[in-house]
Amino acid sequence: MTDETKLTDGSLIGAGKVTGTDVYNLEGDKLGAVEEIMLDKATGQVAYAVLSFSGFMGMGHKHYPLPWSQLRYDTRKGGYVVNIDKERLKGAPSIDTDTRDFTWTSDYGRCVDKYYGVPSVWM
Amino acid sequence: MTDETKLTDGSLIGAGKVTGTDVYNLEGDKLGAVEEIMLDKATGQVAYAVLSFSGFMGMGHKHYPLPWSQLRYDTRKGGYVVNIDKERLKGAPSIDTDTRDFTWTSDYGRCVDKYYGVPSVWM
Repeated sequence: MTDETKLTDGSLIGAGKVTGTDVYNLEGDKLGAVEEIMLDKATGQVAYAVLSFSGFMGMGHKHYPLPWSQLRYDTRKGGYVVNIDKERLKGAPSIDTDTRDFTWTSDYGRCVDKYYGVPSVWM
Repeated sequence: MTDETKLTDGSLIGAGKVTGTDVYNLEGDKLGAVEEIMLDKATGQVAYAVLSFSGFMGMGHKHYPLPWSQLRYDTRKGGYVVNIDKERLKGAPSIDTDTRDFTWTSDYGRCVDKYYGVPSVWM
């Protein structure tokens, strides 16, 4: 860790507290909740928060991996805020199986990073 | 992330899969299991794995924060291996309350890092 990213009082949170936390967009619409966080085994860097979403009529339950860098915690809302409107989320890469059974590949990961326009965390 | 830490196929793991995973020392003794992982809210970097341990006679249930850098995953064992013998763990900084209620301060964090002789992740 570089000096810029050193911890201060109150900067740590348990992974178990992150999961279940609500996620909103900038308009204040609730998009869902964090279902799981995916981290790099080796470095311990969280790469994605998987958003559990059940909001589109007739589309069933969906799981959307969001690059961790897209999430900002809003203390007033008591949840994360992302700059993604509902239409954009609708077209986003999703995981249709149970998140626990999903096989993450570098191709899939790069696809997610590209969709959100973030520098890819994949080789 | 720098190039050195880019993800490859199979390098992601769900936080929910890390918790509950057994932890062994180099001698192969089971020390306990990962109870929680603590991450930096802002950067998403995991700083500590909290080891749940109930092995010392009459000492009750204890929670030991271990710097994430101390854990290596051993596929053969199906768990994490740390270079900490039981005696060393016995004297290590622990959390005596429920991990969820514990207040992490920079002083406490620095104390943990010092005990394990790792560069401190705290300001």
